[in-house]
Order: sequence, then C-alpha cells, then structure tokens
Amino acid sequence: MGDEMIISNKQVVLKNYVTGFPQESDMEIITSSINLSVPEATKDALLVKNLYLSCDPYMRGCMTNLVGPSIVSSFQPGKPLTGFGVMKVADSTHPNYNKGDLAWGFTKWEEHSLIVSPQLLFKIQHTDLPLSYYTGILGVAGITAYAGFYEVCSPKKGEYVYVSAACGAIGQIVGQLAKLMGCHVVGSAGSNQKVDLLKDKLGFDEAFNYKEEQDLDAALKRYFPQGIDIYFDSVGGKMLDAVLLNMRIRGRIAACGMISQYNLDKPEGVHNLMSIIGKRVRVEGFVTGDFYHLYPKFLELVVPYIRQNKIIYVEDVGEGLESGPISLIGLFTGRNIGKQLVIVARE
Amino acid sequence: MGDEMIISNKQVVLKNYVTGFPQESDMEIITSSINLSVPEATKDALLVKNLYLSCDPYMRGCMTNLVGPSIVSSFQPGKPLTGFGVMKVADSTHPNYNKGDLAWGFTKWEEHSLIVSPQLLFKIQHTDLPLSYYTGILGVAGITAYAGFYEVCSPKKGEYVYVSAACGAIGQIVGQLAKLMGCHVVGSAGSNQKVDLLKDKLGFDEAFNYKEEQDLDAALKRYFPQGIDIYFDSVGGKMLDAVLLNMRIRGRIAACGMISQYNLDKPEGVHNLMSIIGKRVRVEGFVTGDFYHLYPKFLELVVPYIRQNKIIYVEDVGEGLESGPISLIGLFTGRNIGKQLVIVARE
Repeated sequence: MGDEMIISNKQVVLKNYVTGFPQESDMEIITSSINLSVPEATKDALLVKNLYLSCDPYMRGCMTNLVGPSIVSSFQPGKPLTGFGVMKVADSTHPNYNKGDLAWGFTKWEEHSLIVSPQLLFKIQHTDLPLSYYTGILGVAGITAYAGFYEVCSPKKGEYVYVSAACGAIGQIVGQLAKLMGCHVVGSAGSNQKVDLLKDKLGFDEAFNYKEEQDLDAALKRYFPQGIDIYFDSVGGKMLDAVLLNMRIRGRIAACGMISQYNLDKPEGVHNLMSIIGKRVRVEGFVTGDFYHLYPKFLELVVPYIRQNKIIYVEDVGEGLESGPISLIGLFTGRNIGKQLVIVARE
Repeated sequence: MGDEMIISNKQVVLKNYVTGFPQESDMEIITSSINLSVPEATKDALLVKNLYLSCDPYMRGCMTNLVGPSIVSSFQPGKPLTGFGVMKVADSTHPNYNKGDLAWGFTKWEEHSLIVSPQLLFKIQHTDLPLSYYTGILGVAGITAYAGFYEVCSPKKGEYVYVSAACGAIGQIVGQLAKLMGCHVVGSAGSNQKVDLLKDKLGFDEAFNYKEEQDLDAALKRYFPQGIDIYFDSVGGKMLDAVLLNMRIRGRIAACGMISQYNLDKPEGVHNLMSIIGKRVRVEGFVTGDFYHLYPKFLELVVPYIRQNKIIYVEDVGEGLESGPISLIGLFTGRNIGKQLVIVARE
C-alpha cells in the first residue's frame, strides 16, 4: 500500500440536475484516473474494484438538487453517481479487510473507488451464491423486503397480500416471503411477460398487468373479493388510491416507495384516505437503514431458501459501466424484468 | 310496566337523503306518539326520556344512502335520526335498570324512546358531574380522545402535538390530555374566538385560526419549527396535506375524522404522502367502538381531572329538540364553539 499505481478509471457522472423524466443524456461516461493504492496517510480505507452496481428507484431523488433535510443526498453534477454495489478489495489500510476480500455497500459508479468509511460496508461471507445477489436479494432489496414485510406489515398466515411492482427488486422477494408464510399473494406488474413470470416462476397465486386495467379498483376487487390485509407499496399514486378502497379491517400498508410519483412536478392526489378510518388501516413509511441490524437474521432465513430453490431471484443485468445510464432510467419505464443491476467487472 | 299511557312524542326526522352540504330543511320536526311503558311482552327493554342529544360529524355519513359495508348505518327517511344521548329511565323490563336511572348511549332524536338493547348503554354512575358531559367528555368524545391519543398516537412527554378542530368535542380533550402529559400542544380552529379559548381557557401552548392562513404549510412551520411528532386529525384534506410536510421522524398521525371532506362529492387529493417514507411516519385510522373496554380506565383518569378543574370542557348547547337540525348542520360550518349538544329536557 502507498505505492503509486495510477490507472484510468471510467465513471458515470451526472451532467446536470434533472427535472421531470430522467434521460440517458442526463449522465455521461468519462474517464478519470485513480491510484490503485490507498494513500499511505489514509487510515482505515479501502481501494476497491467495483464489480456490480445496483440500480434503485430512490436514485431518482439524488438527481434532484435536494434542499432541506432528506434521507438521501443529491448527486454532484460532474461527479460520479453513488449507490450500492459489490466490490473486491484491491488495497486496504483497514484491519478487517485484506486484498481480495469481497464486500457490498455504498460506493461510486466507477471502475475503482476509494472507500474511506469501510465500516459501513458488509463483508461478503457466502461466496457460493451469485455475487450479483448482493446488489439485491442479499443486499438492500432483501433487507427492505424482509423488514418491510415482517416488521412493518406484521403478517399472519392466511392473510391476503398485495404487492405492486411485484417483479421488481423488492416485490419479488416480498411475494415469495409471503407465500412461504402461507399468505394468499397477488402481484401486479407492467407487462404480460412479467405477469407470467410472477405466476409461473415466482409462485404468486395471481398476478395482473396494471397497464391493461382501465379501473384499478375493479381489478383489485376481482383479485381480492374479500379485500386486502397487507399492501406492500412501491408505487404510490393511483394504485395506492385504489388499494385504499379495498383494504380489510385492520389492514396494513407498508409505504416502501412511490415510483409512479418520482418524475412528476407535483405528486398526484390520493383521494381515498377517508377509508382508513372505518377500516382502521395503518399506513406506515419505513426506511431500510433502520433495519440493518436485522441483516444477520435475514441471511439466516434467506440463504437456505435460495440454496433450496425455495426463493428464486430474477435479475436484469446491464453489461458494462456504459450500460449504467440506460439501465437506471429503465427503472422508470419498467424496462427491467427483475432486479436491475450493472456488471462493471466479473471479478 | 305494560300499562298503556300514550303521550305525544316530538321527533327530528330526516326528510330525504342528502348530497352535498346538509341544510336545516333536510330534517323536520314531527309529532308522533309513544306508549310511556315498555310493552309487557318486550323483555329486557327500557322506555327512556331523552335528556341530552349529541351532535357528531359522523352523522353526516348517516344522511347518505350508504351502500356496502360501513361502520355506520344510514338514517331512514321519514324516521327519527339516531345518535348518542343521555337518558332517564321511565320504565324498564331489564333487571339492571330501574325507573329513574340515568344512562348514556345510542338512542333516537325524539323526546322518548323505546330501547330494546339496553346492554349497549352505559349506566351513569357519577351524577355529581354535569349530565350533559355524557354526550361529550364522559361519553364517546372522551373515549375517542383518550384512545386516539394514548393508544393510537403513543405519546411521550415533551413531544410536539398538533390538534386540528381543536375547539371541537374531541380536540379540546386531546389537547388537554397532551398538556397534562407534558407535551407541547398547538391547536387550530376556525375563528379568533376559538383561538382565544384554546390559549386562554384550555391551556394550549399556541393556537391559530386556519381560515386566516393563506399557506397552511407556512403556518405549521411557524408553530412547529422543529416539526410535529403527533397529529390528531379530525379534518383531513388540505390540512392533512400540509401536516405531512411537517412531520418529524417516526411521527404519528391518528386519523379520527375528516370533517373537511364529508360534504364533497369527491374527496380532495392528498399530495404529500411520499413524505411518510423518509420520515417513517405512521398514519392510522381508528374507530371508537374498538376501545369501549377502556371506558372505566378513562373515567378513573378523567373524572378527578374534571373535579379538580384540570380539564375544562366547553359545550355549545342547543335549547330544545327543535334546535336539533340547526345544531347538527352547524358542525359543518364551525358555528359551534365547543362540544355541540341539544337539550331535550333537563330531567
């Protein structure tokens, strides 16, 4: 460590803050350079090679010049995007990490990164599972699904569970956890191919293409004639409004995300909140960061399920850092089928 | 009992189902007749003299021809309204009740009523307190405030509490319970007179007239520069929308009622639900009927407070059954100052 070894370092940078729908052209690929060693004076740091990068809807918020308190930070125009990823240690001044170790956590959208707070990373222990899973089911998406479903929704066997964006990084896990718990699970997604995937591969009891439904309320009444106990919401807007009309008494709505609203100047109005009173419905927002302490417990549950094929995880993989921009904006058109990630390097 | 003693019986009846804003002319006073004795064959029934009747916002829903499941029932056109009231037993075939006993519970808007399910009534024990209080602080409004605040809002000492409709039947109790717990309490109401009452008589830390605020978000930021931990919502609509922008992390919103929406054809849209995610806010609807088991515990708390003048209860009293319609519709214009009730008879 401390040796000078400067190499070129491709990056995905934000060109300008975005309003409305993000475009591929809001980002660009540039080539910078980086020293492959941690500078000698920098204690407890890592120089990592980024292998897999996660594309997440929350990143849309980071493309905005956020003012005031927020749980996410704005990207800096001209600087690489930041996000979750899987990385391999190339150099370390941190006692817990050696060259060759694998980790996942917060990094930058570039080939190599200097990580000055490795205490925020998770060291990867189960290397027999696909490493890319640590951008999804074994990473933030997994903890989100687990905490949102078990901690926020307080599910019981036999309950009626509805998952929107059900083919997405988180939805597919929630649906499968709910099935394993003995719930009746219906998912919605934005294409017939995704609907087939939900029913044929991911074990959902039913699924529907929301884009083909004129009347979301009617669609929900068809799939939930008895009503919905649990709604895991990653969508918000019109879907949430329709769900509110179909909740059962003491139903729970976990507000995980509202992707339908992220590109709007003004969020849509939700008109049916009155129904939460008579139905005693609880609507609760949550943030994954509050539940990292459950990660070991989650792994104990989910790793065997994955090994036994009791939980399947569908990924949509962009090849190369260059595919980053199109992969990221595809989240907002529903282009991805399954968890969207980008492969920067395979090892 | 069983003797025939037919007397005239004034009633407030609904003329037709209401759409939009209810008018005095949607109701009329008619004179029917009733036997002052419980018919001999009718077991476990009471014939009561109605003393005080409660005017409650939920009654607007009963003026609509409700279709489908609902926690309230529609009034029947041509029949007397139903609601909560305080009554004196004139005749009884129920073993727990004797002539002269006092009770509160569900009755009809008429001078005398036959009550066939007295097991749903609460016998009045503390007759040293104003009997009219059993339409409010010692009745449903009290249980609603108590359960909504303690059970749904999970308050902690020092928290920042906002109460809308703060001069109303429930709001004034919530605010005073919150003060007694050591919270910082701000209320809003629709006139300067009510605002003065909140600050000078009911002990709120601050209060404001929402009708004089162009920008509710700005008003809330003024009164809660540090944000709101608990919002007790009886209003919904625009106020709820502004509150959502001002909640603190892990804030709680108890959805008790949404009086601003009851007379609209289509409820207003609430646009700021996205903020519940980052702030981990819980929005929860509740129904008083789920908490009647807490009534004895509530009385134990509140009766001494009332006797010691630590809780004040402001009532707005309509004189005579004839004042029923105008008293009831006045709830929706904010005509009432304090708990609105109607005196049918003083004893």
